[in-house]
Amino acid sequence: MIRKGEYIRDILAGDVGRPVVAHGWVKTRRDSKGIHFVQINDGSCFADLQVVIENGAIEESVLKQVTTGASVRVEGELVPSPASGQPVELKAKAIFVYGTADPASYPLQKKGHTMEFLREIAHLRPRSNTFGAVFRVRNALAKAIHDFFQERGFLYVHTPIITTSDCEGAGAMFGVTTLDLMNLPRYGEGPRIGEIDFSQDFFGKPAYLTVSGQLEAEIFALAFTNVYTFGPTFRAENSNTPRHLAEFWMVEPEMAFCDLQDDIALAEEFLKAIIAKVMDECLPDLEFFNKRFDPQVLETLEHVVKSSFAHVSYTEAIEILQKSGRNWEFPVHWGADLQSEHERYLTEEVFRRPVIVTDYPKEIKAFYMRVNEDGRTVRAMDVLAPRIGEIIGGSQREERYDVLLQRIRECGLSEENYWWYLDLRKYGSAPHAGFGLGFERLMLYLTGMKNIRDVIPFPRTPGSAEF
Amino acid sequence: MIRKGEYIRDILAGDVGRPVVAHGWVKTRRDSKGIHFVQINDGSCFADLQVVIENGAIEESVLKQVTTGASVRVEGELVPSPASGQPVELKAKAIFVYGTADPASYPLQKKGHTMEFLREIAHLRPRSNTFGAVFRVRNALAKAIHDFFQERGFLYVHTPIITTSDCEGAGAMFGVTTLDLMNLPRYGEGPRIGEIDFSQDFFGKPAYLTVSGQLEAEIFALAFTNVYTFGPTFRAENSNTPRHLAEFWMVEPEMAFCDLQDDIALAEEFLKAIIAKVMDECLPDLEFFNKRFDPQVLETLEHVVKSSFAHVSYTEAIEILQKSGRNWEFPVHWGADLQSEHERYLTEEVFRRPVIVTDYPKEIKAFYMRVNEDGRTVRAMDVLAPRIGEIIGGSQREERYDVLLQRIRECGLSEENYWWYLDLRKYGSAPHAGFGLGFERLMLYLTGMKNIRDVIPFPRTPGSAEF
Repeated sequence: MIRKGEYIRDILAGDVGRPVVAHGWVKTRRDSKGIHFVQINDGSCFADLQVVIENGAIEESVLKQVTTGASVRVEGELVPSPASGQPVELKAKAIFVYGTADPASYPLQKKGHTMEFLREIAHLRPRSNTFGAVFRVRNALAKAIHDFFQERGFLYVHTPIITTSDCEGAGAMFGVTTLDLMNLPRYGEGPRIGEIDFSQDFFGKPAYLTVSGQLEAEIFALAFTNVYTFGPTFRAENSNTPRHLAEFWMVEPEMAFCDLQDDIALAEEFLKAIIAKVMDECLPDLEFFNKRFDPQVLETLEHVVKSSFAHVSYTEAIEILQKSGRNWEFPVHWGADLQSEHERYLTEEVFRRPVIVTDYPKEIKAFYMRVNEDGRTVRAMDVLAPRIGEIIGGSQREERYDVLLQRIRECGLSEENYWWYLDLRKYGSAPHAGFGLGFERLMLYLTGMKNIRDVIPFPRTPGSAEF
Repeated sequence: MIRKGEYIRDILAGDVGRPVVAHGWVKTRRDSKGIHFVQINDGSCFADLQVVIENGAIEESVLKQVTTGASVRVEGELVPSPASGQPVELKAKAIFVYGTADPASYPLQKKGHTMEFLREIAHLRPRSNTFGAVFRVRNALAKAIHDFFQERGFLYVHTPIITTSDCEGAGAMFGVTTLDLMNLPRYGEGPRIGEIDFSQDFFGKPAYLTVSGQLEAEIFALAFTNVYTFGPTFRAENSNTPRHLAEFWMVEPEMAFCDLQDDIALAEEFLKAIIAKVMDECLPDLEFFNKRFDPQVLETLEHVVKSSFAHVSYTEAIEILQKSGRNWEFPVHWGADLQSEHERYLTEEVFRRPVIVTDYPKEIKAFYMRVNEDGRTVRAMDVLAPRIGEIIGGSQREERYDVLLQRIRECGLSEENYWWYLDLRKYGSAPHAGFGLGFERLMLYLTGMKNIRDVIPFPRTPGSAEF
């Protein structure tokens, strides 16, 4: 047994004068007057542990292997550090090098790498300061999301990744198949002659990767009252932008006996709680982002946690935009969707805090949203945040069988595909609502990172699915 | 706002004499001497809340809608219950029916449905006693897994679902494509003439659904020391059995500075901790399984939590099997894989507790497992459990560059595909180990359910990906 001792996080918080065994990777090494200062990190926290090697304490043959990137075990004594910014340091008595890292070829030397270069070495970038911080924040955020819902009695549901229904029409979908593309089976006769015979495919029909777990989550909400999904979703859109991924994680709570107002209240409570939790757990990481990437990160997050979100209907929002006297790139009129410029104006200039916009025209929202009494708007709500725009989208769902059926037809969807979704409105239907949060979008907000490829371990984008 | 009051779980645990608002679905209704007894359930716990409606307390027009499957809000007073098995009941003062369920057509009437039928109505089965219990256990198990690792400082990593490397060769893979199958682009000239031009596909090359996140988890372990994945994985095997799914969830911890013995110790601690946690959180659900599905469930689980797992090398296990005097269906000899009959003999008859088998012949294990000094075996470990067989498979990983490269070549794999995996052994390599747990396999163990299709919300199997 190796028995990895303590995390560096715990060593740094511990008492001096005791024996310590530390494991980690060498970040930097500095030699001064026969004394060697080696920073090691094990990923458990932003701070490195400083190892001090006095003259002659360690054999020269070992010492020369202690270079940036090497993995080491250091045994020694924890002593007060004379250096500023660190209370303790480790006085080395023995060092074992598990794995060297040739300084001539190790790609992650200490210097400013571009984000583009670091993406190419996605197998090493987790060891850098930046990506160490990113993935600790990502872990803390995921944990905060689970904790938030579990503490409130929400059931975690694993909705399916592979689906045979192109529901929602939320966007282009990836096909999933086991057919041999070089020898596709085709109908040899009959009315479908020449077409591909999907009865020979794995699922007996065309299958896709899910774009949302919402419809299946509704099934579970109408049995367990409060549920949530947290899993990967997919869009096959050819969008090569800093804000789009083909594979990303989404959080989707769904609540029965819940209307739009309850939904809004939960969304606000949720955002504040998880941001506060991450600030609590990862402050040194966030301070690093604030210093290195975006000097407004911490201020913005604190503001979101403390502020009371503004509430405005879509119709009111349109009036505000029309009265603004601005020259909008995208013209503003009732019925048009809000664009980024409009969202930023509302959040950053008019309300100066997150804004929840409700009751959108039904034409620009999905078929499943509950139709208001006016017949023109639906019980949708989008949470817009300063600097980032829409961060949450949700709605009360149409729980009335007849109205839902009519909406499915109006939207040109196939009612046979939705037989079970309609069934939910036939048997024990209840008012229910939910929302979706794009996990990586929130990660951008928390870290101030500019490219969504840099807040997910292995980004999938058009032309790229490496690692 | 509807403000869903309390969960029925909390109402049942609460004090009598106070006003209560309950929401839920009607399980059953019984009328006796002008008094109506209605059991309602909101999914928060196994037990129903009994609503007592006294003669004339509720209007007849409402009362006649209170049938099995209807969703209701009941306001009333919590009073002591004279009935056995329930401390309190709700004396109704007002009832509101949100959604009716026509008794003539509602499929989930109170009677013994077959599991096959319930699979066909996967949108309603979560409301049944059985599937209510299954999905509460599933939630508790998922939570226990996250808690176990988070409490120990493990970082949760989202490894990718879509991959372009057919790593590991762990099984048949699903293809992922956005090509129009009816009009596949083909090379019109050159050496690949007639072949499909995947440069026009979304990722510019053939892409698949992942079979394991292990290799990517190793990247993160070699930066954050202790990490875990918990996400969906896929096998395109045409196995129509009660133990196979095409889409299932897997848990994969990976630890740096960790050898096989540390790995084994963690696996045992992990299994015991999460089973104990679920027993603690979901006892009424487990008691139901014990009563209805398998009278040994609780006893077996208690035994696993309390017993010390047996340890035996593969070579010793083979000797035990050879000396057993049994007539094995699958012949036993050094070099052959253990079959179900062998696993059951070891766990149920020889050791009568979970058994960890280590150091398998390298020929029957994956290329990435660390080769032992004997050159014939690898540092693999499988945890076998009574009644179910292999439940965890793991290993120490080969951390030596030269040995790994040789194994990749021996196994006929392409070393270019593994460039980054080899890089991890070139730069700061360290002993590391991990294991994989099939989430649904463990669900079978916890619930005593016989078919893996009945422990996942929406099973994906050959020919079936409904809902």
